[in-house]
Amino acid sequence: MTQGNVIEGVYIGNRFNLEKLFGKVFADYSDQVRLRHPHEIEDPEAIRFALAWHPDDDAFTPYPNLSLVSSIAAGVDSLVSCPSLPQTAHVTRIRDEAQADLMAGFAVWQVIWHHRNMGQYIRQQATPKWWQHPLDTPPKDYTVGILGYGLMGKAIARAITAAGFPVVAAVRTSKTNDADSEIGVRFETGADAIQRVAAQSQVLINVLPLTPETENILNADLFNQMSHGARLIQLGRGQQLVDDDLDTAISTGQIGGASLDVFRKEPLPEDHPWWSNEKILITPHQASDSSRALVAQQVTAAAIETVAGRVPANTVDRNQGY
Amino acid sequence: MTQGNVIEGVYIGNRFNLEKLFGKVFADYSDQVRLRHPHEIEDPEAIRFALAWHPDDDAFTPYPNLSLVSSIAAGVDSLVSCPSLPQTAHVTRIRDEAQADLMAGFAVWQVIWHHRNMGQYIRQQATPKWWQHPLDTPPKDYTVGILGYGLMGKAIARAITAAGFPVVAAVRTSKTNDADSEIGVRFETGADAIQRVAAQSQVLINVLPLTPETENILNADLFNQMSHGARLIQLGRGQQLVDDDLDTAISTGQIGGASLDVFRKEPLPEDHPWWSNEKILITPHQASDSSRALVAQQVTAAAIETVAGRVPANTVDRNQGY
Repeated sequence: MTQGNVIEGVYIGNRFNLEKLFGKVFADYSDQVRLRHPHEIEDPEAIRFALAWHPDDDAFTPYPNLSLVSSIAAGVDSLVSCPSLPQTAHVTRIRDEAQADLMAGFAVWQVIWHHRNMGQYIRQQATPKWWQHPLDTPPKDYTVGILGYGLMGKAIARAITAAGFPVVAAVRTSKTNDADSEIGVRFETGADAIQRVAAQSQVLINVLPLTPETENILNADLFNQMSHGARLIQLGRGQQLVDDDLDTAISTGQIGGASLDVFRKEPLPEDHPWWSNEKILITPHQASDSSRALVAQQVTAAAIETVAGRVPANTVDRNQGY
Repeated sequence: MTQGNVIEGVYIGNRFNLEKLFGKVFADYSDQVRLRHPHEIEDPEAIRFALAWHPDDDAFTPYPNLSLVSSIAAGVDSLVSCPSLPQTAHVTRIRDEAQADLMAGFAVWQVIWHHRNMGQYIRQQATPKWWQHPLDTPPKDYTVGILGYGLMGKAIARAITAAGFPVVAAVRTSKTNDADSEIGVRFETGADAIQRVAAQSQVLINVLPLTPETENILNADLFNQMSHGARLIQLGRGQQLVDDDLDTAISTGQIGGASLDVFRKEPLPEDHPWWSNEKILITPHQASDSSRALVAQQVTAAAIETVAGRVPANTVDRNQGY
């Protein structure tokens, strides 16, 4: 059934029906790539790439000639942790400037939610009650820390500095002379950079990729570095937050409030106590979303590059996990 | 009781007890200026300046040597519309970069409130319900219009463009080569600039000063220029909005939602129907606030300049009203 030079691919994932999400946008590239579900594939040796998200442990095993595994989003943690991921396949992610804008807008919204205590006005409207609150801390004295300084973190920093807040970010290597410094971002580097960022932050934003190193990184030790009453904005991955440690920190007031967009178990169960905690704002993993058309465009390009023997754009370092 | 070179001033205003708000910060300048209430003043001819906000019609009449009237904030509309304002007095306003940052953060928060429909997540949390909503419009296709492009409008534009939204602003004179264009702001000029801005805007932010020209400027004619379902963010003055026209536009869906921070009558009466309208977000005139310390510093400096025969900084054009 394969035509001429069409590159054969497979949908791999147990969370969503990927064809339902992406079939339509990949139709625009039907002369270059073709994606099918595993049960539709008669000749697994013909499969050269996978569009993947949360694969089962043995999901990649049937395809001996798989040379590209593409994520549907910026994160690849569910792919690189899969035992059957072929050692020789390139793993790519989506790089989406528009998605970074979405993340940036969402993050600055959450910062101001905490800085201005916007929830109180929503509660007052429901009463109704007209009640003005003097602001204790001007933006210039309200430092925002960012954990994770890739495409997303940079976009977040740009949006937050433009609203007048100082930003400090944790990075692996020193960045003293680049465009980020020009917009007023300060950097912490080295082994305890994350702790030092937390210690300076009135509000801490996590957009780290999920790797073995970042699992459980938002824990009691980190919260105790922060000033009393500081806020947490969690936009990374649920497995990075130690849920019980957050509960303790909120109950003691060490963490004054949190915005949570990602969770260990999604959907967050309806009986979870976080739903009714006035200090926690819950959003259902909505901080950002890749454009589906861009996914089709970037994955198709990656498949063509891979089959031609080149390393595709947006290939991740599997050892680093991002 | 006057000492050496201390310049005598008077608190003038019927809304707040200005001494309660500002007495403490002016104490730092007690060797340069002294402010008292009208009933404390035995020699009205000694009074050279007024710290004023919403004066009664005849409030300035007793003071023949008043040469400076300072607002406590960026707006001077309640001063320049006062019948007893001396023709020869300088009128000054507060110019506060930190206040502009506050306004910018508040405005970008409101833009994202509408763009991402954040209210739905707050309602879902109350249920509780995990429900994801695909985003129809990326930031780059969601144009934000700004009416009023002074210190506040520029700060707002900077914050909103940094979050990825296109901005179009109405200005009196053409600005094609300045720093504002560099951050991606487009301008409309001329007689119907405001209408043309509205026509392009998914969300329209008003931060115009209140003048005879801008009174009732947010009206049915303007709303009908906008695309169906566009949003309004009203951060200017209550008298600029025709309340009934907004009610009509919201009931027909022409205006899809509004954020209102200022009102014709403040506090907004508790029985006003806007409080319970799910499409209207009400905040109690909290978009921004001048630093009190900065008010004391700028008003003291203006008093010294005025008495020395010079035109103080931040003097407004009384005819333009800002």
